[in-house]
This record gives sequence, structure tokens and C-alpha cells, in this order.
Amino acid sequence: MSSLTAFNQEDISEVGRDLYGFAAELYPICRSITGDGIRRTLSMISERTPLQIHEVPSGTKVFDWIVPKEWNIRDAYIVRPDGKRIAEFQKCNLHVLNYSTPIHKRMPLSELRPHLFTIPENPDWIPYRTSYYKEDWGFCLSHNEMLGLKDGEYEVRIDSTLKDGSLTYGECLIPGQSTDEVLISSHACHPSLANDNLSGLTVATELAKFLSGRDLRYSYRFVFIPGTIGAITWLARNGDAAKRVRHGLVLTGLGDSGHFHYKKSRQGDAEIDRAAAHVLAHFAKPSEILAFSPYGYDERQYCSPGFNLALGCLMRSVWGSFPEYHTSADNLEFIHPHQLADSFRLCAAIFNVLENNRTYRNLQPYCEPQLGRRNLYRPTGGESIGDEIHARLWVLNLSDGQHSLLDIAERSGLSFQTIHNAADLLMQSELLSLVPESDEQERTAKTKSSATAPR
Amino acid sequence: MSSLTAFNQEDISEVGRDLYGFAAELYPICRSITGDGIRRTLSMISERTPLQIHEVPSGTKVFDWIVPKEWNIRDAYIVRPDGKRIAEFQKCNLHVLNYSTPIHKRMPLSELRPHLFTIPENPDWIPYRTSYYKEDWGFCLSHNEMLGLKDGEYEVRIDSTLKDGSLTYGECLIPGQSTDEVLISSHACHPSLANDNLSGLTVATELAKFLSGRDLRYSYRFVFIPGTIGAITWLARNGDAAKRVRHGLVLTGLGDSGHFHYKKSRQGDAEIDRAAAHVLAHFAKPSEILAFSPYGYDERQYCSPGFNLALGCLMRSVWGSFPEYHTSADNLEFIHPHQLADSFRLCAAIFNVLENNRTYRNLQPYCEPQLGRRNLYRPTGGESIGDEIHARLWVLNLSDGQHSLLDIAERSGLSFQTIHNAADLLMQSELLSLVPESDEQERTAKTKSSATAPR
Amino acid sequence: MSSLTAFNQEDISEVGRDLYGFAAELYPICRSITGDGIRRTLSMISERTPLQIHEVPSGTKVFDWIVPKEWNIRDAYIVRPDGKRIAEFQKCNLHVLNYSTPIHKRMPLSELRPHLFTIPENPDWIPYRTSYYKEDWGFCLSHNEMLGLKDGEYEVRIDSTLKDGSLTYGECLIPGQSTDEVLISSHACHPSLANDNLSGLTVATELAKFLSGRDLRYSYRFVFIPGTIGAITWLARNGDAAKRVRHGLVLTGLGDSGHFHYKKSRQGDAEIDRAAAHVLAHFAKPSEILAFSPYGYDERQYCSPGFNLALGCLMRSVWGSFPEYHTSADNLEFIHPHQLADSFRLCAAIFNVLENNRTYRNLQPYCEPQLGRRNLYRPTGGESIGDEIHARLWVLNLSDGQHSLLDIAERSGLSFQTIHNAADLLMQSELLSLVPESDEQERTAKTKSSATAPR
Repeated sequence: MSSLTAFNQEDISEVGRDLYGFAAELYPICRSITGDGIRRTLSMISERTPLQIHEVPSGTKVFDWIVPKEWNIRDAYIVRPDGKRIAEFQKCNLHVLNYSTPIHKRMPLSELRPHLFTIPENPDWIPYRTSYYKEDWGFCLSHNEMLGLKDGEYEVRIDSTLKDGSLTYGECLIPGQSTDEVLISSHACHPSLANDNLSGLTVATELAKFLSGRDLRYSYRFVFIPGTIGAITWLARNGDAAKRVRHGLVLTGLGDSGHFHYKKSRQGDAEIDRAAAHVLAHFAKPSEILAFSPYGYDERQYCSPGFNLALGCLMRSVWGSFPEYHTSADNLEFIHPHQLADSFRLCAAIFNVLENNRTYRNLQPYCEPQLGRRNLYRPTGGESIGDEIHARLWVLNLSDGQHSLLDIAERSGLSFQTIHNAADLLMQSELLSLVPESDEQERTAKTKSSATAPR
Repeated sequence: MSSLTAFNQEDISEVGRDLYGFAAELYPICRSITGDGIRRTLSMISERTPLQIHEVPSGTKVFDWIVPKEWNIRDAYIVRPDGKRIAEFQKCNLHVLNYSTPIHKRMPLSELRPHLFTIPENPDWIPYRTSYYKEDWGFCLSHNEMLGLKDGEYEVRIDSTLKDGSLTYGECLIPGQSTDEVLISSHACHPSLANDNLSGLTVATELAKFLSGRDLRYSYRFVFIPGTIGAITWLARNGDAAKRVRHGLVLTGLGDSGHFHYKKSRQGDAEIDRAAAHVLAHFAKPSEILAFSPYGYDERQYCSPGFNLALGCLMRSVWGSFPEYHTSADNLEFIHPHQLADSFRLCAAIFNVLENNRTYRNLQPYCEPQLGRRNLYRPTGGESIGDEIHARLWVLNLSDGQHSLLDIAERSGLSFQTIHNAADLLMQSELLSLVPESDEQERTAKTKSSATAPR
Repeated sequence: MSSLTAFNQEDISEVGRDLYGFAAELYPICRSITGDGIRRTLSMISERTPLQIHEVPSGTKVFDWIVPKEWNIRDAYIVRPDGKRIAEFQKCNLHVLNYSTPIHKRMPLSELRPHLFTIPENPDWIPYRTSYYKEDWGFCLSHNEMLGLKDGEYEVRIDSTLKDGSLTYGECLIPGQSTDEVLISSHACHPSLANDNLSGLTVATELAKFLSGRDLRYSYRFVFIPGTIGAITWLARNGDAAKRVRHGLVLTGLGDSGHFHYKKSRQGDAEIDRAAAHVLAHFAKPSEILAFSPYGYDERQYCSPGFNLALGCLMRSVWGSFPEYHTSADNLEFIHPHQLADSFRLCAAIFNVLENNRTYRNLQPYCEPQLGRRNLYRPTGGESIGDEIHARLWVLNLSDGQHSLLDIAERSGLSFQTIHNAADLLMQSELLSLVPESDEQERTAKTKSSATAPR
């Protein structure tokens, strides 16, 4: 299998510039869960990695939900009594309550006020608010601007349409040797918000480009979807693909300066959970592992009890935990090229564990084989040994057909890469055989079934 | 099922006054493991909640034990050489070694001394001592009083009888929908000691009154027994009832100002253990969970290996850990109405968990159901959500027929009440079905049998 | 079974003097993995405890290894250009690279230099280095001495032989009631190094003497072998004995002043692991339990995946963690009689747990039996009880045929000895029966098989 961890500093700088540049291109677009904003976004992603674009008609039933009407918007603003235009959509698309129904009307401030959203704690920022499933209209503006509003007649205009159309999503399958899939999901419905989720979209796009054409163990499916309704729609239409998902990641919030967080799947001890925890522990200090909870991003859908997919969520700062979250301050200054690039590299390292986490059998299981005559040991007795030789001893000791390389990395405290290199070397020396994947899966299934259901 | 947690502050004050008043009425009685003291106590409890009173003849074999002779006492005192009466039973019934054989004799101090018990560390307090199973006589007095005793001839009088009679205990069964029982046990054999165990007796009595007439899932059996021999006698005569016990509590030491302690059952992970730990963690901070040990109160008998009942012990300060324990300082000033009332409320909250800890199945397990259109979600997207909505998401996510509401409360960190309310609401919205109790028990049994026996 | 813990201070002092004296006798011998040094060492051990001595011819295949040629040495030194002899084998046998091929040659310093080994961090000490499996020659000397070497012609002489002969090891079996074995292994191949491993050799010898002639549950096999190749040779020739090993210890580094360390077996939760941890926790504070790792002493071979024996390694300071390790400073001043004696006593205490760790069944499992009438309880009620009575209650409560005495000691926090004494007393009172060992093993096997394989 490919090694997915061989980057030099120059590669990474290049990747960072590319990720940031793409985020900057996507930033101005007014995305929503349906409509031309997301359609144009998917088309731009498609120029970098070929996407299959799906259009699902409004009114389609998807599990307990119905694909909503398509929303499009041309303009929106408020004219103050003194004639000044404020909350101009053309200046910042966050100004309009996303999915607002059209309106063009004069009204007193008292009638307008309930339709205005602000953030008193950060009085200069514009909040991001939506009203997808309750037909309504509204404006988001800075608290200071709202405080300055005087009584009088206001002109309110939202030039939007909400009518039958379709929900749009894109997907891209990078085939591997196995039809078992790794699912990477990013929501593509947020308007001008850089970290949430242009960072996820761009990193996912870059990963798809990176994996494409490689000799891979798993097939990798990237889905770019509107949040919630998009994941539900994808799952409703792709039951068979969902059954093939063995591992997965929701990618979001990967551009800010916070340290990494990985939120575990509902299963809690899935291979993806252990792979992500291992990579974070070795390559992203400090970092934090969060327990699963049924609130957050689209892992809510993938980890619903009927699916219970082995899919966690990788992010830097946790949604809702930083003041810029869902505000105009989550802009292009809030994300940085090298933070995006590190996120990309971390994802690749996690995939690298999944790709190479195989189980071996020591062909000389009775006592240690004589590593010295194979030049796999130190030459002079009495001296200490380094990680590389320790790794060989660990791999030989635990390769009884019951321990994967990740098991061995966890128990030894050595990095997966060091363990994997040792296994490669021992394979070359014909001291190991590879356990067929079918036997491995049987073992895993047996262990799982005897395990107590997680509480 | 009834909610057992709906009290306002006034209810609780009323309960506290009632509990304390009853403790004050019971305080003067000289109880022992047999005799008129415990008989009169049971009769007074019976006026508040109807008891079935059992009399078990002396000499009856109960497992490895034999019901002892019945002990009654009218008077006891010592007359000093100077003619002053001390250690007067009429002033404090702790003065007599409980179960003392009768004596009326003159003797020098040297002969009396080995029969005197004091507490040097608290020289003004009278200890509580017993000699149930070795025929003996003795007096308990303050250390200071003993130090003042001068040589000379003493008159010693204990006007007691120890002869064939019976052991008395009371019980009361509040029937519920199921014949499965919750057993609540309190020892009723201590003389004038308020916390140990008038607090337990009064709280148990109040709980029986409170549960009576309610629509209950379980049947609740309250037993008021002499310590050790009473529990043994009850178990020896009630093997069938013991088999029906699914949960239980020994109640003792519930009136002092210490924080709550729950000592786990021998099983260690029984539902009662988890319910008590949950309620203490949410409603009684600070509080402490203690591991099972085979020393303490009557859980020693209920948790003996032949029975191994799921029964823990709830108390405030732990026996033996406070200086007033088993002394005259454990008096009516040592307990307080609001502490008794809080103990009552805590027990009710534990019962509330047991009553409502059912398992549900999400009827829309594929993705989240659309809570918004059922008015179960926030109206505007982009804002944060509160505990109530979190609870709905948790219940939906984990209600796969494998997780009880207590499982969900524990995993989510939310209170059982919040989780239970969410389940009620989701049931009303027809998003959940209740797993039949028979299926639930089968699952629990399966999990238990595959679990390693506790060490 | 014998109690193996009854020593008084005088016994222990005597043992310490004996252990130290024997170490001093063995110290000057130049041992290696083959040859007359180890042969003479085994012969001296044999005078204290009868050994069976085995000679395995050079060239014999043992698993992946081949028994090497036999090495013997008479003399070695370097003559400096100024005529001064240095690195004299006669003064310290560490001076010669162990297993050096013979050489007698004049050479310039530049040719000699690559064959010299020193310790720059401790410039006055001589390192211990070996070259068993690569034919080479060399000298070990103090760094300061090496720094003083001037250019010029050096005479280099190693009067050794390396030719077909045999590998020598000794073993001694102390028979017990069962053919199940406890294996104690010590490496006997290090030259003048006191802690590593004369301490292990002498303690093992003393233990063999101590156990000999006693009424034992298990058979005890002591093996005195050259490190690595000796363990491999023993295992290759004793597959049947290896199958009978139920517990085992590698003994090494038991004479220094560091606190005790026990390195767990690969199994990690074997009875020997728990017995050693228990004894260390109760009798050797501070002390430390180390996870298994496939580097260290001969546990590397015993715990290779094909054998996976329940064998840990007991030591004081951990190899490689103290500067004296594998240097001339690991001399007779580095070890002390009372430290050797304490190590001996600790091993005996561990064996004592193994010998007596049986499972019992409470014959009065319904409620507590009445201990009072058997004089197994305190006489006066109301007073607290001590460890001895607590231990009786614990043994009765957990003796349901599912808990061994070690299980009970661990759960109660009491020492194994206290628990064992309680069980003895309760057996005498006919309150317990002993579970036949066959039933016990069945239960253990069942528990193990359902356990998840260690990661």
C-alpha cells in the first residue's frame, strides 16, 4: 500500500497555499442547503477533483424528512427612515437570515425588530442564522448597528425565491483494492464562513486529489453535501454504499489556530477512533479526544442507531466553543494556510494507519528469531537499543495473528509508522506472514460480538 | 408510573417536621433485639403505616443461628458506697449493657469494674454496648463518672428478665404492578440513639406512607427488624420473597449533618447501585460511593453469597466514622428535620429511577427524525440548544433496545429526570416504543452472564 | 501447604550473610555463554543445591539459533609503546570484549582504537561488552585510560580459544504434589558483575535450598543458564516441561539498593503477575509494576508468542536505568547482604501466595454463620473489629467457589497472609470446603477464554 505520510516541508507549504487560495475563491459565494450557491461551489470543487453531481427534487421523501424547496437570492437590504441602506446582502451575505422568504414592504421598527438577529456579546459581528424548516424572513446585523436604529418607517427588501427545485450534492469515489469504503463527509451549505466549513471542503478536496490514482487498500468516498438534510438524503439514497463503509470522518473547522479535537464515533472503539487517537497523540500535541454525543455535525446522521457507522469528526476548535463560531468573524483572517495544511497532513496520516493496519503472524514464534545474523540487531552486546529495534521485537512478540499493527503501536507506545516499518523489514526477512483480511475480519467480529454494548 | 420527585419546599418542610416529631416520640423507648421495646416501636410505626407484626419463638433455628431468649427490663442502677445512685436506667437506657442478665448484689469496686464500659476519648458520654449472645451483665457510664468511683461496697441492680418469648419484627408490602420487589430494611433494635437508627426507621415509615396507594411498577416491601438476627430470621422465613427482590436499600444514619454515602451491593454494578450513584451525583453534592464490604449493617445478610441480593446501604455519615456513633451523643440534637427530609427525598428520587428506568426503541432509527416540525427543536438554526433538546437527541440516538434510560443518563451526563422527560415527550410524538420488560430482562441476563464475575 | 513466610530477623540476617558470601566466591570467575567459567559456576551452585548439568554440543540447532562454539580464555592485555601493560584480564575480566577471538599482534593505535570500548560519562569505569555472534576481538577500559594512549606501536594479546565444544546449563527440580511447575530462571553468563547477575544466581540457589524437602503444592524448577541462547536451548529441549509451567519468575538485579520492580508477563494478568503485585504492594513500599515489553532478560524467550508462559521478571533497579549497569561499578560494593536477603524473602512470599491461593466454598452461604459461638468474633457488641475478623467476613462472603484467596485479598485490601489465616481458621471450624483444583482450573479457563485478548 502507498505510504501516505511522506511529505517534506515544501510539499506542505505548497498544499497550504493551495488550500487557502481555494478557500478564498469559495468565500464570497452565498451557499445554502439548496440553490445556486452550493451548485456553484460543487462545480468549483469538481474542477479540482471530478465530482458526480446529484440533483434531488424538492418534495422527495428522505426517511422522516422531505427535501425542501430550493432557495435562491439576488439581493436583500433594509432602508432606514433616514434613507440609509443597511444589512446589505451585497456587502455580506450573512446579513440575510438564510432561507428567508421574499419580502418587500414598509414597516415601523416595532414590526421589524423581531426579525433582527444580533450578538450582544460581540457587538460588531454579524451572526449567521438560518430558518430552513419554518418559513420566515429576517436580517442579521451587528448589535451596534441595531442599537442605532431609530423609530420610523423602514423599507425591508429580500429578493429571494423559495420554490420547487432540487437539493444538490456531489460525491467522488476513489477506488481501492477493496470495495470496503472510507467515507469522508463535509457540509457545503454555509455561506461566507471560512472555518465552518470552507476549511473542511478544501481539505476534503485536496485529500481526494491526493488519493486519486494511488494504489489503495480501501475505496474512498468523498461527499460534499448540505448539512443535516444532505447527509439524510445521501443515506436515504445510498443504503448499499453505507453498508460498505468501514471507517469515516466528518471534516470541519480545520483552518483555525486551535488544537485538534477528534470526536469519537458512537461505537467509541472503532478502528477509526483508535487510528485518529493514535495519530493525534503522536503528531498533534496538545490535542483532545471527545466522547461521542448526538449533537454536532453530520455524524449525527451517520451515527444514528439504524446506521451506527464507524465515523468520527475531526476538527480543530470545537463548534460553539469559540466566539467567532457562526459569525462574520469566521472569515479568511480566522484561517491560515499552514493550519489547513497540517489538517490535511493529519488526515493523510490517519488514512495511512487505516491503509496499513494489517495483522501478521510471526513465522518463528518459539523464542526470538536471531535478528543479529539478519543485520536487524545491534552489533555489540551490552549496549542499549533504539526504537527501531524495539519495534522489531514488539512486532515479533505480538504478531500471533491476534494483534494488528495498531494494537502493537498502542501497546508499545511507539508510533504506527515505526511499527509499520519494522513489519515491512521483518516481512522482507521472511519472519512474518500476512494474515488474510478475511481471517482478520472474522476475529474482529468475534471480539466485537462478545464485547458488552457500549453504554 | 408515578413521578416520585415532585415536591415543593413546603412539602419537604412538613415532611421534616413529621419525621423529627416521630423520632422524638420513639427516642425514650429502650429497644433491644427482642422484647417490649421493639414491640412498642413497631406498634407506633403501625399507626402510621399498617404493619404485619411477626413473633418468632425463642429457640427457633434460623440458618446457623437460634432465636434468642426474650429480654425485658424494668430498672437498673448502681448505688455507690456513699449511697448515691448512678448509671440509672430510668434516666438513660444506655446505662445498662443491652441484654444484661438480672442481678441484685453487693460487691466491692474491684468486682464491679470489669462490668463497666466507658469512652475515655469522650469522657462525658455514655457508650452503647450489648451482649446478646454471651450471657453477661454490665453498665455503661461516662468515663468521668467512673474515674470518681471510690473503693467500697456497691449495690448493683439490674431488674431484667431473659427468658423464652419471641423475636418481633414488622413488615409492610405496598403492592405494585409487578410482583418483583424493592426491599427496604431498617434495624429497630437500638435504644435511645437518634441517628442510628431512629432516622432510618422514621424515613422508612414515611416512604411507606408516601408510596402507599400510588400506581407503582414494583412492589415495595419495608421490613423493620432487629439487626443481624432479625435480618437472618426474615431471610430464613421468606426465601420466596427474597427471590423476588430485584433492588433494595438498607436505611440507616439518615439524620445527621454529614454528606451522603451509598455503599454498593456485593454485585457492585446492580441497577440499584447505579441508580443511587446517579441520584447522589446529581442531587447530593458532595457525596460518596463506597465499595461493598461484608461489615456494616444488615446488607451483610442480604448480600451473603447464598442470597447476593442487589441491595446497598444508604446513609449520611458512615457508622464508626463519627465520635457520636454508638454513644449518648447520638441524641435528638444530633439529627435535624431538614436532614431527615432530604434523606427522604433522596430515597424517593432513587425509587423514581427504578420505577422509570425502562428501555425504548427509536421508531425512526435511520437518521434523526425531524424534530422541528414536531416543535421539539429550536426554531432558528445556528443557535445553541439546551439540555432538554440534548436529552431528546440522546434518547433517540441510544434507544436501540439495548440502552435503558439510566444507561442514557449516565452516558450523556444529564439527569435521569431530564432524560425521562425527553422519553415521555418522544413517546407522545410516537417516535419511541417501549421495550417489553420481558425482553429487557433477557438482555440484562445475557449481559450479566457474559460479564466476568466481580473480583 | 508449607507457610513460606515464617522468618525471624535472625534467619534473615543469616540468609543475607550466606547470599553475600556466595556472591563474593562467584565474583572473580570469568563467565561467558559457554566455557569453563559458567561450568565452574554451575559446579559451585551444585554444592549448595544439587543440579543436573547439561552439555549441548556446539552446532546444535535450537529453533532459529545454533549453539555457538565454546569460548575459553586464559589471558589478555595490551602493551603500550612505553612497555606498560594495560587492560589486563588478570586484574579484571571485563577488560576483554567477552567472546573475543584470539589475537597476538603489534599494531599502531589507529588500528587498535576501533577495538576499544569505554564509557565517556563515567570515565573511570570499565564497560562490559560482548560479541557472541560476530567473531571479533576487543578491549574494554576506562575512558581516562584510553584518553592517555599515545601514538606508537601496541602489542595486543588475547589468549583465548573459540572452538567446537558445548553450551552448559544446570537445572534442579524440587518436586511438589502437582507436576505443574513454577519455573525460576537466572542467567549465569555475566563475568565479574555482582548485581547482574550474581544476585539472581545466589537468590535462586538459596530459594532452591529453602524449598527442597518441603511439602509443596507445585514442583519448582530452577534453571541456571546463559542468557538468551541458554533460555532458547532450554526451551528447545524441554517442550514438555514448558507445557507444565503454570507460573514463573526471571530473577536478576536483586542486590542493589533500589526499590523493587516487577515486570509483568506478556499475559499481563496471570496469577504470578497478581501475586507479585500483591506482595510488592504489601511488603515492598515503594515498588513498581512494569508492563511487559519484549526487551529485557530471558522473559523475552519464555514470553515469545509460541510459548507465552506466565512468567514475569523480578528485580530491584531496572536494567539500563542505573549508571553502574554493565560496568565495573556493578561490583561487590554495589550489593548488600540485607538487600539480597529481602529479595529472597520477597520471592518466598510470592511463592507462598502461589502455594496457598486456593478457592473455597462457604458451607453456610445463607446469611453469616454465627461466628460468636465459635469464638471467631468480638465478645461485646457495639465495638469495632480488627483486620482478623474483617478477613473472616471477607472470606465467608466471597467464598462462593468463584473467588480465590488472592481475589479476596485484592478486593478486601487485606494482605494475602491475613486472608489465608482466616481461611485456615474457618476450615478448622468447618465453615469452608476446599474447591477441588480441577474445578478451579476449569473456571479460570472459562474466564480467560471469554476475556478479550490483551492489546
